[in-house]
Amino acid sequence: MRKRFSADSYVQGILAGDRIMLGRAITVTESRLPEDKKLAAEILTRILPKTGKSVRIGITGIPGVGKSTFIEAFGEYLTLQGMRVAVLAIDPSSKKSGGAILGDKTRMEKLSHNVRAFIRPSATGLSLGGVARSTREAMLLCEAAGYEVILVETVGVGQSETLVKGMTDFFLLLMLAGAGDELQGIKKGIMEMVDAIAVNKADGENEKTANQAVSEYQNALHLFPAAESGFQAKVIACSGLYGKGMDTIWEMIGEYQKITKLNGFFLKNRQLQNADWMHDYIRQTLADLFYENAEVKAMLPAMENAVREEKLLPPQAANDLIDKFFKSQIFMNKS
Amino acid sequence: MRKRFSADSYVQGILAGDRIMLGRAITVTESRLPEDKKLAAEILTRILPKTGKSVRIGITGIPGVGKSTFIEAFGEYLTLQGMRVAVLAIDPSSKKSGGAILGDKTRMEKLSHNVRAFIRPSATGLSLGGVARSTREAMLLCEAAGYEVILVETVGVGQSETLVKGMTDFFLLLMLAGAGDELQGIKKGIMEMVDAIAVNKADGENEKTANQAVSEYQNALHLFPAAESGFQAKVIACSGLYGKGMDTIWEMIGEYQKITKLNGFFLKNRQLQNADWMHDYIRQTLADLFYENAEVKAMLPAMENAVREEKLLPPQAANDLIDKFFKSQIFMNKS
Repeated sequence: MRKRFSADSYVQGILAGDRIMLGRAITVTESRLPEDKKLAAEILTRILPKTGKSVRIGITGIPGVGKSTFIEAFGEYLTLQGMRVAVLAIDPSSKKSGGAILGDKTRMEKLSHNVRAFIRPSATGLSLGGVARSTREAMLLCEAAGYEVILVETVGVGQSETLVKGMTDFFLLLMLAGAGDELQGIKKGIMEMVDAIAVNKADGENEKTANQAVSEYQNALHLFPAAESGFQAKVIACSGLYGKGMDTIWEMIGEYQKITKLNGFFLKNRQLQNADWMHDYIRQTLADLFYENAEVKAMLPAMENAVREEKLLPPQAANDLIDKFFKSQIFMNKS
Repeated sequence: MRKRFSADSYVQGILAGDRIMLGRAITVTESRLPEDKKLAAEILTRILPKTGKSVRIGITGIPGVGKSTFIEAFGEYLTLQGMRVAVLAIDPSSKKSGGAILGDKTRMEKLSHNVRAFIRPSATGLSLGGVARSTREAMLLCEAAGYEVILVETVGVGQSETLVKGMTDFFLLLMLAGAGDELQGIKKGIMEMVDAIAVNKADGENEKTANQAVSEYQNALHLFPAAESGFQAKVIACSGLYGKGMDTIWEMIGEYQKITKLNGFFLKNRQLQNADWMHDYIRQTLADLFYENAEVKAMLPAMENAVREEKLLPPQAANDLIDKFFKSQIFMNKS
């Protein structure tokens, strides 16, 4: 059996900055058990007034771009400045691969031993929507525990960038010099989302081509319309391996915060993200309740077959299932 | 008041190939009124055995690529071969602009006067999901009315390509020569979806660059893994304005059908599409029922404000609203 504490214990532990209790509380929020959901809601509601004080930074880039090394270097830099840093991940693939990113803390060995840092791998066994939900909650718990910078890493597959963009203040894209855009899988949609591009591995022989790439990406970014944030997206060179450029990136994020807090975008964006979170949660919960419903589960395979074989119209099958679903909800609520 | 006929009248009209009744039946399926939904379900269920015999072709490309001119030329070509052609559109923007594509039938003047063609603009006032739903139903009605080729045009914005890909057998991307990929807004995701690329406006001075573009896109397509369909995506040059290349495209679609019907992909893909349609419909309907619920509507603005201002956690607000929703459903079902 999983050991659980009282909501009080979690809340006190988190507010005292206890990393063990923080980790345990995140585990509670990731659970799908009804009693854990209730406990999680209580913990989250109680820590809510202590949240929101961090800067939330989304970091994306293709595999091989050096995300782990970059985060290790950036985290080290920030903790040396006296800050406390939490690293979270959106990695829907971690279910299959046993943790493609951050699954193995040894990939950020130095940072994982740093007392001012907290590293949490992506939740496993959840859908992308579920991972997003638990990451949002983990972010709040980390803020309540006093972490001033939250780094949210995305594996960069499917919708994960959009999700991370939708829960962070600043979105950083890591790229490499020399690799074509095609190879780097850069979609126009991502370029439109970024607040900054950091050309990583700008070290040794690579430095010159990295600086060329900086100019190229700068030109490419100018093709996009001005961001609503009022902050002109920037491109810089950096080296995660040698810790180069970390100060520039942090200055840039500082500038971003200054501009967007002054013009109101920072707050407006967070408010919008909160509302989006509620609506995502509603849609996801309605679907979860539906697909977890025993009567729906029993009927679904036969309905799906009938639909596949064109014996039943998809909307008709859907409506029949939805009817069944609501009727069983009534029964549950009555009993 | 909207005039409605009996389900019988619609069904008989459609099966007799009556274009007026077909158009009216589509209007019924687009309606959100409960009595129309019931009528639409009855019509659709009754025509179901007569559906599925067409080849469904999705056509996309950026504005300016010449989609209307192409469809006019392709439609004329097909009707001259003795076929009956229906043209539908997925255009979520038609709500705002009063019909960005196909809103004005004069854009396909010749085809709209062709007795073997049926042109239907995108439904207005619906969400993208709603447009997709009504297009799927319109497609079935057209098939029952004897149309052998269904062309589904997408405006190529947001998720519309994915939706069209998800309801068609063959996906054709129109492109231009000379314009950079960046300018044409080509996302890697679209290139992976296509069964063929037609470089349009390959006429006059443009012909040479068009042929060069054909080679370039051919090379680009070879970078992608082999399609599950077993059909190697092809690139050709065409001119909608001069009706050039229409025969080649139709031959290609014929070859596609031959290969995929032999290897089983054609049927498998349609079966998968039917199942996806059911699941999309379920998610969309659950959300619609929720957001159209009177008690939810009454509570929502205050909840959204509380969430925006961080007085309430988004999941907590969502759960409260969902509770209210289910309780009111019980009341409705009891009464």
